[in-house]
Amino acid sequence: MKIEAKLAERGLILPATVQTDASVRLPFAQVRVYGGRAYISGHAPLNPDGSIAGPLGKVGREVTLEQAYHAAELTALAILADLKRELGDLDRITAWLRVFGMVQTAPGFQQTPAVINGCSDLLLDLFGPEIGAHARSAVGLAELPFNIPVEIEAEVAIAAE
Amino acid sequence: MKIEAKLAERGLILPATVQTDASVRLPFAQVRVYGGRAYISGHAPLNPDGSIAGPLGKVGREVTLEQAYHAAELTALAILADLKRELGDLDRITAWLRVFGMVQTAPGFQQTPAVINGCSDLLLDLFGPEIGAHARSAVGLAELPFNIPVEIEAEVAIAAE
Amino acid sequence: MKIEAKLAERGLILPATVQTDASVRLPFAQVRVYGGRAYISGHAPLNPDGSIAGPLGKVGREVTLEQAYHAAELTALAILADLKRELGDLDRITAWLRVFGMVQTAPGFQQTPAVINGCSDLLLDLFGPEIGAHARSAVGLAELPFNIPVEIEAEVAIAAE
Repeated sequence: MKIEAKLAERGLILPATVQTDASVRLPFAQVRVYGGRAYISGHAPLNPDGSIAGPLGKVGREVTLEQAYHAAELTALAILADLKRELGDLDRITAWLRVFGMVQTAPGFQQTPAVINGCSDLLLDLFGPEIGAHARSAVGLAELPFNIPVEIEAEVAIAAE
Repeated sequence: MKIEAKLAERGLILPATVQTDASVRLPFAQVRVYGGRAYISGHAPLNPDGSIAGPLGKVGREVTLEQAYHAAELTALAILADLKRELGDLDRITAWLRVFGMVQTAPGFQQTPAVINGCSDLLLDLFGPEIGAHARSAVGLAELPFNIPVEIEAEVAIAAE
Repeated sequence: MKIEAKLAERGLILPATVQTDASVRLPFAQVRVYGGRAYISGHAPLNPDGSIAGPLGKVGREVTLEQAYHAAELTALAILADLKRELGDLDRITAWLRVFGMVQTAPGFQQTPAVINGCSDLLLDLFGPEIGAHARSAVGLAELPFNIPVEIEAEVAIAAE
């Protein structure tokens, strides 16, 4: 349980899975495991109880770069939490492959790489430069669900149980 | 031909492949099969003859949520039609892996998950909870080609012929 | 060295890897190789020295369709350059699988497929219709980093060394 020991050392908490309003149906898998890969749905920044974490809004207007960096970190933790529920043990991850970082931007805000670094920095810190290395895009979306400032989709390679 | 029997039962029609203006070149594969996977290009909602299905425009302005849900359903049918042409038989699909749902949003429209449910609901209805389960994102894009309200990209696992 | 001979015949130059301002950290892999696949980060159009190539801005406003087509071509060359550095030899690519083309659009600009054709045309010219065939999306993003008009993410299959 190497990765979870590191999370504990850093005082980082894996949140409950996303909790939304009863009117919102999300009829898909947060993590889809198949053939040595886990495909990870677009995730939001979450509070420990699984509620969406604020501040909400467009980055560069209602949300600062620093707040958005933190939101990307919380989003990475939400991804790790769903991976743990699905895989049982985060040490089964043998390689991060792809991180697709989406930032809900105010017109003209283009420091999207600096926002998604909140996710990349945490993954590299926890998994190290070999397992943690990942291809990445970090781009500005017009609108994200629930008015979240950051949403991240990803793909990892996993070892058999 | 289990999936096609279900389509027939529900009265659902697989459209012809996308037909566009002679001035528009689309020099890529609608479905790219390789190594047990089919990678599915961004698809549009289509009429049975392969023409783009209206209404067109931004969701939340020219297109309502209900219309956009239906567009996502038509887009799923367009994907299934191209998969059938490429694979021969839709029963060769062993797992849906990733659905990337893009909604052309008017400023402030954020119910993108409720739109892309039109695709997810159909996939789960046809393929069931095991094969049909998929990781998903549903996000708001600034502009989509042909002014379509919904575009969906996907990846599936397939069995050898 | 078939692909590189073709590049030389056409007078096309593979640029240095992206060079950005010292204040910009990009803590991820431009190309992530794992299990017979190379996952390619979102790439920008580059000058031969690796600096971002202009013109910058929104397509349909500061950047014309023709300029954006050329930017997509330069982005494909930047991808090939990083693939060569990572793989040693571009002939190791056995299949293009997925091209995700993002265009930074001015409001109302929807000829995004015609822009990303700059990438698809080059890949098909160099790799031919079998290896070069790829699934593709070509969509309009609100904002891209560094104000670039085009960003492209991709995935290819590769042969063992």
